[in-house]
Amino acid sequence: MYRPQIKVFDCTIRDGGLINKHFFEDQFVRAVYDSLSKAGVDYMEFGYRSSKQLCPTKDFGAWKYCDDQKILEIIDGTQSAMKISIMVDAHRVKEQTFAPKDKSPVHMIRVATYVKDIDKAIDLVNRVHDLGYETTANIMAVSTEKEPDLVEALKQLAKCPVDVVYVVDSFGALFCEQIEYLVKLYQQHCPGKELGIHCHNNQQLAFSNTIEGIIHNVNYLDASLYGIGRGPGNCCIELLLGFLKNPKFNLTPVLKVIQDHMIPLRGQIEWGYLIPYMITGILNRHPDFGIKRREGADKDKYAEFYEEMLEVLDS
Amino acid sequence: MYRPQIKVFDCTIRDGGLINKHFFEDQFVRAVYDSLSKAGVDYMEFGYRSSKQLCPTKDFGAWKYCDDQKILEIIDGTQSAMKISIMVDAHRVKEQTFAPKDKSPVHMIRVATYVKDIDKAIDLVNRVHDLGYETTANIMAVSTEKEPDLVEALKQLAKCPVDVVYVVDSFGALFCEQIEYLVKLYQQHCPGKELGIHCHNNQQLAFSNTIEGIIHNVNYLDASLYGIGRGPGNCCIELLLGFLKNPKFNLTPVLKVIQDHMIPLRGQIEWGYLIPYMITGILNRHPDFGIKRREGADKDKYAEFYEEMLEVLDS
Repeated sequence: MYRPQIKVFDCTIRDGGLINKHFFEDQFVRAVYDSLSKAGVDYMEFGYRSSKQLCPTKDFGAWKYCDDQKILEIIDGTQSAMKISIMVDAHRVKEQTFAPKDKSPVHMIRVATYVKDIDKAIDLVNRVHDLGYETTANIMAVSTEKEPDLVEALKQLAKCPVDVVYVVDSFGALFCEQIEYLVKLYQQHCPGKELGIHCHNNQQLAFSNTIEGIIHNVNYLDASLYGIGRGPGNCCIELLLGFLKNPKFNLTPVLKVIQDHMIPLRGQIEWGYLIPYMITGILNRHPDFGIKRREGADKDKYAEFYEEMLEVLDS
Repeated sequence: MYRPQIKVFDCTIRDGGLINKHFFEDQFVRAVYDSLSKAGVDYMEFGYRSSKQLCPTKDFGAWKYCDDQKILEIIDGTQSAMKISIMVDAHRVKEQTFAPKDKSPVHMIRVATYVKDIDKAIDLVNRVHDLGYETTANIMAVSTEKEPDLVEALKQLAKCPVDVVYVVDSFGALFCEQIEYLVKLYQQHCPGKELGIHCHNNQQLAFSNTIEGIIHNVNYLDASLYGIGRGPGNCCIELLLGFLKNPKFNLTPVLKVIQDHMIPLRGQIEWGYLIPYMITGILNRHPDFGIKRREGADKDKYAEFYEEMLEVLDS
């Protein structure tokens, strides 16, 4: 699949940070930045710009806040054409500040939002757009939203200056025909906007659903090294680069950082296809149910967990 | 997805046996048979009916041969409506014998073949069809076949009494649009035949490609417990049953046998998404390259393996 408009967007540090409260060693973040730059990846997201009032700094690593100065410490000295992104939760905006774009190493600010918070999201988009940043609106947990509410939110986004609107399958619940349906719905109500896709791998569908997005002209493609991300994780960037035929991409540096860093890391923290996440995916529930299960002594009692989840749905 | 014609076909013991030379404990095979029966799975394949001349019994476990008497030892005493299948390689037929269907616990004989061996496959199909068995022809490694040769083989199969013709992505190289193309090609040249699909998980596409088959009216769906199978393994049967909405299927017994048997087994033998298999998949090469790599000290040197495989392709 060759389409020059396609942008590969790496979430390794940002979504991976949800597993370990954003405590990554600088050396690791630098290795990721270096390898993705060599691989020709278009964007790398470092983490969140969270409020230090809402999220005390004693509880989280640096990538919960993504101070401009901290990002500069990582990227300093590395040759790279890759753009840098940070994420903000629309419903958790408080005292966070953003320098004007030309004073910051950040190129893009992505606003994660639920449909109910779309006005907060648009307010933030307007604010950071005026500062010169590229912007996205990532509508989370779309598999649980009612369609009229979603359509209303899309119509509002169509009228705001956001650059990219994302289909986000937070619960890893969707399969290809549902992705196609949503992409066409987004295109209908946000005409002319670029679309993005962010999938979770509960049902081993993150890569294939990303392909489904590509087929229907989605151009911003989220992925991560070896699929790292909360719970079941994301689309594997090594699979995505293997699929895309644009010669600007180079798989070798990605394979190298996986063998040197991701395999050892996978021995320390857990993500990927595990049955409790498969269960929350097929039942269209938040992965937190699975994450809590994996933290306990009953982490491998799948049949019992499934029956308990069915009862939750019934209640 | 509800379509009463759909048959879920389990390959746990047969394809899993390719990892350990078919040495499974009777207790394990019985647990699999019992759980799949309770789950409402339609077929279970026990292994191969291999020639004892070509494959000496000192080198392999019982499921390399699948003697009727051995199958009876396993299933005796278990209430089950599930049908039993065995596989035969068309190019390795020698002195193997088959009892008439009404004297055997086996319901279906699946003939695995390359396009070049299609005449041998049809000869075997005719022979076992006349003995009363259901039959399939599984055309392996279709991602490497030339289309005119494949079409010629399909036209021959259309004229023989085979019940089901399988699309087999042996190298885990295909993505959804290629599956759609092949399924339509098979339908065009084998009108009226049922189709089956057997996918490998090199690129985490085994489940999604199986869904693609379902969308295009493929009714025989291969899968295995926790995806067990040679190299990257197969479509996970737990994902497939979670997707299919026919109330005859029950996920709980499948989750139970995964927690009790498959997770411990995965600690002893290896299968699943591993980078060397992802590399052979994207390069459309036999998984044996990856299997050999995983057996050596360099099993996690992915970048070097990728560069070596590119050289193999160039030479």
